[in-house]
Amino acid sequence: MYAIGERINGMFKAVREAIQAQDPEPIHDLAKQQLAAGANCLDVNVGPAAADPLAAMEWLVKAVREVTDAPLAIDTTKPDVMSKGLELAGPGSVINSTKGQQDQLDIFIPMAVEHNASLIALTIDENGIPRDANGRGEIALRVVAAAMEKGLDPDRLMIDGVILPVNVAQSTPNHVLETIRNIKVLSDPPPKTVLGLSNVSQGTQLRELLNRTYLVMALAAGLDAAILDVLDTELMDAMIASEVLLNKAVYADDFLKAYRA
Amino acid sequence: MYAIGERINGMFKAVREAIQAQDPEPIHDLAKQQLAAGANCLDVNVGPAAADPLAAMEWLVKAVREVTDAPLAIDTTKPDVMSKGLELAGPGSVINSTKGQQDQLDIFIPMAVEHNASLIALTIDENGIPRDANGRGEIALRVVAAAMEKGLDPDRLMIDGVILPVNVAQSTPNHVLETIRNIKVLSDPPPKTVLGLSNVSQGTQLRELLNRTYLVMALAAGLDAAILDVLDTELMDAMIASEVLLNKAVYADDFLKAYRA
Repeated sequence: MYAIGERINGMFKAVREAIQAQDPEPIHDLAKQQLAAGANCLDVNVGPAAADPLAAMEWLVKAVREVTDAPLAIDTTKPDVMSKGLELAGPGSVINSTKGQQDQLDIFIPMAVEHNASLIALTIDENGIPRDANGRGEIALRVVAAAMEKGLDPDRLMIDGVILPVNVAQSTPNHVLETIRNIKVLSDPPPKTVLGLSNVSQGTQLRELLNRTYLVMALAAGLDAAILDVLDTELMDAMIASEVLLNKAVYADDFLKAYRA
Repeated sequence: MYAIGERINGMFKAVREAIQAQDPEPIHDLAKQQLAAGANCLDVNVGPAAADPLAAMEWLVKAVREVTDAPLAIDTTKPDVMSKGLELAGPGSVINSTKGQQDQLDIFIPMAVEHNASLIALTIDENGIPRDANGRGEIALRVVAAAMEKGLDPDRLMIDGVILPVNVAQSTPNHVLETIRNIKVLSDPPPKTVLGLSNVSQGTQLRELLNRTYLVMALAAGLDAAILDVLDTELMDAMIASEVLLNKAVYADDFLKAYRA
């Protein structure tokens, strides 16, 4: 599984304060810790409170780049902030994210092509979040068609089925599992699938248990990537055990150690 | 999920010794502990070492019946031992198990009908364990047809896709997940599906992690029942979280406590 570490995000207090104080130390630490814990890519989000999002993203990406060349997922809805982030992060970055309506696809797909970036597309459009898997599939199909038309490789496209918190929308986890399975047959080769995992447990009391249980289900449904808390050891253990059981990582007696080596 | 507790089994030393010494105390304890931990049914197996399996089963079932009226899964390959166990356990029992070849089905399906029992049928036949999900599906179809012909309700039939240890047969977990999904469309109403869970981790070092990870995957594929170690709290936590995420148990902030209450 392609693991995108979620922790460099201004919604976390330590990151917000680091951005405000222009103190790169906490950012360096979070980057290094997440990579050591198995992140293949680091999400970078200045958070909703940043006074000047463009300047904040510029500072944040530069801070991360002082300690690693790993791929970054630039996490913003603002095209100018995205563009600046991609430019500073370099090729191999991830656009996180576009919605599925045409006006957004017209902006972000060419941007992905221009910057040699991957693109996370949410199955949300001008009508909001679809009620079921069929609605999500329709948006995914539109995104895949637009990507093909504009020359973005399907394997650079990551469809996010948009999970909602289980405490407020208990039928959504099933819909998203079905969406992941359906997307695998949308095109040949199919686009990748991704999940903003922690959202499934937003506002719940037993977050870690819900996160790791749902990740296992999603991986069994064919999930390729997740934005998640790679510092949650039990979550990563569950991910690795899943890869072994799904025959995607070779079995070893201590497969946790082998995978991490 | 219908949880069948696996611990009253002569392959465990304490049970073997209790049978040999005709000491009902450890059996009473295991029955009560497993029911308190969430077992809906208790597997009863005298183990391979019993000198007189018929007498041992008679003693063991009676010992369990001294403390509970819960359904029992009589676990033996021997028809006479099965018949005696069912007779002593009473209606609502489970036959664990028959293989899928005709001569076995001819014995155990009528026995299930006669004793008002459910029947676990392994997707194994005279040719052994099938290589893939298709082979398992063929045997399942034969079992379903035989059950219909002989008047056993599909909802009293539980098909076991036969999981093998992941360290020796790493492609099997995928085949069994596919089998579980396929069985759901075999008939209307479909038969139930069941899994002898612990076998997935037989001989491995990280047994609990593999067991709970695979259980979550199987539940997401539609698994109805499992023979498992209900005394493994983390395993049962994962089962309950799965039921919540699959919208089969109602969400509550402390859903573990709510489910267990």
